[in-house]
Amino acid sequence: MLSFARRLLGRPLPRRESDSQRLPSLIALPILSSDALSSVAYATEAALGVLLLAGSGALGLSLPITVCIVGLIAIVVLSYRQAIEAYPEGGGSYVVARENLGAWAGLVAAAALLVDYTLTAAVSLMAAAQALSSLLPGLLAHETSLSLLLLALVGWANLRGLKEAGRLFVVPTYAFVVMVALLALFGLQNIVFAHGFRPDAPPAIAALEPLGLFLILRAFSAGCSAMTGIEAIANGVKVFREPSARRAQATLLVMGVLLALLFLAVSGLAYLYGIAPNPDRTVLAQIGLRVFGPGNPLYWFLQISTLLILGLAANTAFAGFPRLAALLAKDRYLPRQMAWLGDRLVFQNGIGLLLLVSALVIVVCRGNTNVAINLYALGVFLAFTLSQAGLVKHWWARRGKGWSGRLTLNALGAFTTGVVFAVIVVSKFDEGAWIVVLLLPLLVWGLAGIGRRYQRVYEAIELKPGEDCSVPWPDRRDLLENQSIVWLASWSRPTLEALRYAAQVSDRVIGVWVCEPEDDFEALRQRWHRLVGDAPQFELRLLESPFASLIDPFAQFVAEEEARCPGSQFTIVMPMAIPRRRFDHLLLNQRGLNMREALNAQHSRVFTLVRYFPPA
Amino acid sequence: MLSFARRLLGRPLPRRESDSQRLPSLIALPILSSDALSSVAYATEAALGVLLLAGSGALGLSLPITVCIVGLIAIVVLSYRQAIEAYPEGGGSYVVARENLGAWAGLVAAAALLVDYTLTAAVSLMAAAQALSSLLPGLLAHETSLSLLLLALVGWANLRGLKEAGRLFVVPTYAFVVMVALLALFGLQNIVFAHGFRPDAPPAIAALEPLGLFLILRAFSAGCSAMTGIEAIANGVKVFREPSARRAQATLLVMGVLLALLFLAVSGLAYLYGIAPNPDRTVLAQIGLRVFGPGNPLYWFLQISTLLILGLAANTAFAGFPRLAALLAKDRYLPRQMAWLGDRLVFQNGIGLLLLVSALVIVVCRGNTNVAINLYALGVFLAFTLSQAGLVKHWWARRGKGWSGRLTLNALGAFTTGVVFAVIVVSKFDEGAWIVVLLLPLLVWGLAGIGRRYQRVYEAIELKPGEDCSVPWPDRRDLLENQSIVWLASWSRPTLEALRYAAQVSDRVIGVWVCEPEDDFEALRQRWHRLVGDAPQFELRLLESPFASLIDPFAQFVAEEEARCPGSQFTIVMPMAIPRRRFDHLLLNQRGLNMREALNAQHSRVFTLVRYFPPA
Repeated sequence: MLSFARRLLGRPLPRRESDSQRLPSLIALPILSSDALSSVAYATEAALGVLLLAGSGALGLSLPITVCIVGLIAIVVLSYRQAIEAYPEGGGSYVVARENLGAWAGLVAAAALLVDYTLTAAVSLMAAAQALSSLLPGLLAHETSLSLLLLALVGWANLRGLKEAGRLFVVPTYAFVVMVALLALFGLQNIVFAHGFRPDAPPAIAALEPLGLFLILRAFSAGCSAMTGIEAIANGVKVFREPSARRAQATLLVMGVLLALLFLAVSGLAYLYGIAPNPDRTVLAQIGLRVFGPGNPLYWFLQISTLLILGLAANTAFAGFPRLAALLAKDRYLPRQMAWLGDRLVFQNGIGLLLLVSALVIVVCRGNTNVAINLYALGVFLAFTLSQAGLVKHWWARRGKGWSGRLTLNALGAFTTGVVFAVIVVSKFDEGAWIVVLLLPLLVWGLAGIGRRYQRVYEAIELKPGEDCSVPWPDRRDLLENQSIVWLASWSRPTLEALRYAAQVSDRVIGVWVCEPEDDFEALRQRWHRLVGDAPQFELRLLESPFASLIDPFAQFVAEEEARCPGSQFTIVMPMAIPRRRFDHLLLNQRGLNMREALNAQHSRVFTLVRYFPPA
Repeated sequence: MLSFARRLLGRPLPRRESDSQRLPSLIALPILSSDALSSVAYATEAALGVLLLAGSGALGLSLPITVCIVGLIAIVVLSYRQAIEAYPEGGGSYVVARENLGAWAGLVAAAALLVDYTLTAAVSLMAAAQALSSLLPGLLAHETSLSLLLLALVGWANLRGLKEAGRLFVVPTYAFVVMVALLALFGLQNIVFAHGFRPDAPPAIAALEPLGLFLILRAFSAGCSAMTGIEAIANGVKVFREPSARRAQATLLVMGVLLALLFLAVSGLAYLYGIAPNPDRTVLAQIGLRVFGPGNPLYWFLQISTLLILGLAANTAFAGFPRLAALLAKDRYLPRQMAWLGDRLVFQNGIGLLLLVSALVIVVCRGNTNVAINLYALGVFLAFTLSQAGLVKHWWARRGKGWSGRLTLNALGAFTTGVVFAVIVVSKFDEGAWIVVLLLPLLVWGLAGIGRRYQRVYEAIELKPGEDCSVPWPDRRDLLENQSIVWLASWSRPTLEALRYAAQVSDRVIGVWVCEPEDDFEALRQRWHRLVGDAPQFELRLLESPFASLIDPFAQFVAEEEARCPGSQFTIVMPMAIPRRRFDHLLLNQRGLNMREALNAQHSRVFTLVRYFPPA
């Protein structure tokens, strides 16, 4: 097993390599922004899908909606640049909210982000599968399996360590940017210079619902999914080479500009070419088909780079989720295991958890991204709002140089994203937002509950002041009330060794043999006497087993002895033969393993395994 | 979990109830013979299926074949009556072959029986599903799921304990016997008394193969599947009330007579009514349909009792397999766990193993019983032959009163079944017998291998004569080279307790803290000094962790210390806080659990858990 895991994940990395895991901006950009950039592959489509309900005539409204969202992107990017300045150690929404607005706000932000990351991984991979099946319609029926396969690949790359995953991610992200740029170029050239070229009008589709403000708000909410992932860079400042804060800020700005341009390009082309959403082929694929033409290899390049950036966008989640979980674990809101660094210097437990949950989401959604997109836009805007409200408080508390401008910008950000959050909750409530409205409080409650349990447990085991040396240390040669209870199951060398050890550490050694009905009490007594001779500290107890279990009578005897001599120090000693061959473990000691479980439930304080290694 | 298991399986039974688990003959008969009796539901069909290859004209040959098999049944039943006499403790083929022909012959018999029992469970349940789908053709597509469902039911009944399973089994077995008797009665009455009644001629089907001796032998081999399960009563003598041997002999005779009559009845009616096998409806169902007519509730009763006895026939396997596995485990040819009695006084590990493997067979066969029937007739006859050859040797070695007659009868049995075995191997080799020919040696090799490993391991830990008291026992207050190494991970009460215990049992206590890069060495040293004060036996070691693992440096330190002081007795002491709430276990001690695993791989001899129970 171990060797298989090692082959799969690579040899353990020394900690000093951790520093060299930091990345130059040109590599950090694709890693941390593949989510944000790739979302243009589905955001336009999501907005158009809603508008289509009011008939194909309403599709043109996507343009003003896109412009609004680009404005939002500008506000949020500028706000997060300030977050990096205020928290150069990595200022994710969780940290900012916790520091400025208190523990509860922090937990709400954390819960929103955990949901987000999970849905990001799931949605991106489902959209990736759709990009592929737009190209190869034969795969339409296998989208779920395809998504899960991609998930396994991304998870594996991340378990091997961030740096290697990073290299993997550079090419497709940039390729996608280039392909969308080419798409815009060729698309505009067709329209402006190609004499006689006329884009199709959108297929005439009748309205199902009247075009009202509510519908427009719903389309706007759906389009806001383009903004997911912006926070990743602010969360991952530590990934950048020094000076990491400045590099992160620059990278964030570049990312924001790229995102706005790509989103404008896709929405604009969809409008100009009169594209309507269609379940068998994505909007982006339809644009590509019209602009490049079906036989053109550029169309294939577009779809494949979309597939790859979406597949890899899930990586933002795999970078962010484990890091946030580790942060929460260090603050004791999640089990400490989440903060353990694996052999490859990644938080492998967090990666494993994310793999599990996002696989579940993919299986539940069965390829339909709509509900999941609604859910995660919600979480994203909640996190935005909390983080920017936190920054407002931050600038106010410090009132350093230029504080008023900064405060104003973040206040504007908090207000805008808060309004968007409210819009999404209201307009999308029926379409799945209610799930998040239920889930978030549950998650917060869970995190807080873990925190409370940790506090209780640590309080209970904490050393109170003065408790350190209050009782003098015992000395081994003092006359102490030390007793050992040794489990006897065979007359063998391990048993002998266990008795010998017990004699070394205690004044009285009770050997306990739990008899099965066919055992001969007298023979057992004689064998015991032959073994221990006249040594006075030894004593044999033969217990009957009225039920099938041999362990219960032993555990009960221990409990009784402990109750009888409350002043004594009892040590339970279990002989154990450790065979040389791995396979032999199946043949030996199974009763001993069960015993350990059983005594765990009892209150016996000291449990000792004396192990005998047979000569080779 | 525990409480769920208890609800599913019932409260633990006291051992004294084990005796009252013995059964009167009228209940033991259906339990131990449901397999043998139910096999008439498919044996005739299996033979007819082969004959049909030579065209419908050859179907009449089933009658002489049936008569031959009835003769075989008589020989085998009489032989096994003598096995019970010779081995009143339960004379299964394994015991008889082992005692008389040596360990290897015993293992071959055991392997044959293990394969048999598994296939019995699988074949019976698949045939049961077929009986039901003959009645309800809509279920034809779900036969595999149905078989698995029945398997789960039978396994559950057995895990709850033999006696309750027995009661469950009385009605359907007797009902099946009564229904086949009624079928014969009505069938004959139609033909003899109903004037004008003419049974149909079999549908004219052209020959695919010429009718030769080889084909007849193949049909005979297929029909021999009627003989499976006869050995169950001889294996299960201990299940009977006292005098168990005499009761078992009488029951075996009754079972043999019933089996012969039922088999004759089904084959005879199939001939008289001109039935040809048909994939959608079993032969027995076809007979029932012709004799009773489609609307007759008796037809329904027939099918349902067939379903039930077949479903329950799998129980013979669930009675036999775990008992044989326990026997093999006591002889150290299987892991000892197979001989453990569960809370319900059954060998639950054997039941679990059988459940697993037979489920696998059902899934692999996907409802087609033909291959599996070929396989298990083979195992059955191999076991028959070995057991009877063993009995020949038994009578010869003793030469008690009437030995020559007994020897002759068993020799006849061994010879006949040996010939049948050879016939099956040759005639069915292409149809799946080769699998058993490969599998049996592998199984024997596996069993012998486990036996060899146990022998080696037990030899290595065995106390040699004179080893018992060769070295004087140590006394706790002697000056000994005792050292403890205590794992430090927090400054808490569990740590304090662990240090205190270590001081009690050793002269030198080394506290080891494995540092993460952010730890402050100097602060840790001061804290340690505040904790232990000036006590001279304490020493602190701060270790660096060059890789992510904190456990590896600790384990390495222990190994180095042990190598440095080979004369010392080292005790590894691990503090552990045991929280009151079950859930809290997830939050604490995870590092400690990993540590135990890691140190298991090392050679440190004594591993001690000092557990701290926080006040409520």
